[in-house]
Amino acid sequence: MKLQVAIDRVSFEKAKNLTEIFDGLAEVIEIGTSLIKDYGLLKLKELTSKKNTSKLLGDIKTSDEGAYEFKQGFKQGFDILTVMGSAALETIDKCYEASEQNNGTMMIDLLECSDEKIKEISHFKNAIYCIHASIDREKLLNPAKTVKEFKERFPQVNRIAVAGGITLDCIPELSKHNIELVIVGSAITDAENPVQKAKQFKEAMGK
Amino acid sequence: MKLQVAIDRVSFEKAKNLTEIFDGLAEVIEIGTSLIKDYGLLKLKELTSKKNTSKLLGDIKTSDEGAYEFKQGFKQGFDILTVMGSAALETIDKCYEASEQNNGTMMIDLLECSDEKIKEISHFKNAIYCIHASIDREKLLNPAKTVKEFKERFPQVNRIAVAGGITLDCIPELSKHNIELVIVGSAITDAENPVQKAKQFKEAMGK
Repeated sequence: MKLQVAIDRVSFEKAKNLTEIFDGLAEVIEIGTSLIKDYGLLKLKELTSKKNTSKLLGDIKTSDEGAYEFKQGFKQGFDILTVMGSAALETIDKCYEASEQNNGTMMIDLLECSDEKIKEISHFKNAIYCIHASIDREKLLNPAKTVKEFKERFPQVNRIAVAGGITLDCIPELSKHNIELVIVGSAITDAENPVQKAKQFKEAMGK
Repeated sequence: MKLQVAIDRVSFEKAKNLTEIFDGLAEVIEIGTSLIKDYGLLKLKELTSKKNTSKLLGDIKTSDEGAYEFKQGFKQGFDILTVMGSAALETIDKCYEASEQNNGTMMIDLLECSDEKIKEISHFKNAIYCIHASIDREKLLNPAKTVKEFKERFPQVNRIAVAGGITLDCIPELSKHNIELVIVGSAITDAENPVQKAKQFKEAMGK
């Protein structure tokens, strides 16, 4: 189980600073949707070109124009990019193709996806599937239970991430399931000491 | 019926130039998703602060964090912003609230929305509902027929826009329906003479 720290709704300078701070500490650093839409991928290259150890994920939330957005994102130095599971299958196909061609990884954001839709898009072998509760709706009330049920319904999905209000308390239960990435945002970035908090998460994950 | 010209996948300078060219000619100028994700809303303020007559739409395609994205978009000078119909109802609620508070307009992009979902979100009185075929899937094969059927299924929706491969040939049939906005991208922007082409669209629309 790896830690992904999500940076969102901060200034460019603060994002730059947090990216440096978390480098090598979190396995994946997420540059959130708000940063992409506020500052743009071209400017964010300043962050991706600085990184060292951690993988950098751009939460681009592609809904259409799959090839254009994914090619652009990988060109600007991101390792992982997100597409909405609610997008057309053809869009997700194009994102996957661009990922494979650019030695990158596609993460599918399952926000608001029906079981029927998930089934239709569950065959992308190298993709990471992100179980995700909308920030506008509610947190995942019981993330471990949600993951367990997801795995029972979709045993064909190997790479799983979970996001949406994950706190330190959730980690012991989540650790029992075969989850690749746990995505944590404000529980780390809004902490008084974000580095210390990230270390606590990693300890709880047995690292 | 009004004309919305969509600017996408071009450099910032070209977008600036096209925005100036279309100002006052198209009732709405769309700054496409690709421009928002490539350059960011903060830089795009340079475009919104220059505009004169036309309304400016930011195709931000909000999927989550409705309040943050819509407040930011209106703050940067956009008149109309888009939210995905596939987003959580709570997200669309927050976008609508931000639109009403900021004297702006919400457009709901119905890309990949089921009839059931459209029904659930069809009550936003001041919103524009955009019937939209994915650029990755197919063009709307018969836009006028699609609009006619939509209006029969959702008579409660008053403000309708249509997008996805609209060409000059489509306009006479589309004119028969009560459509607020026809969104045209490459058929105008890729034309040898975009201004002349936009004028042809307006003539076909009876203006």
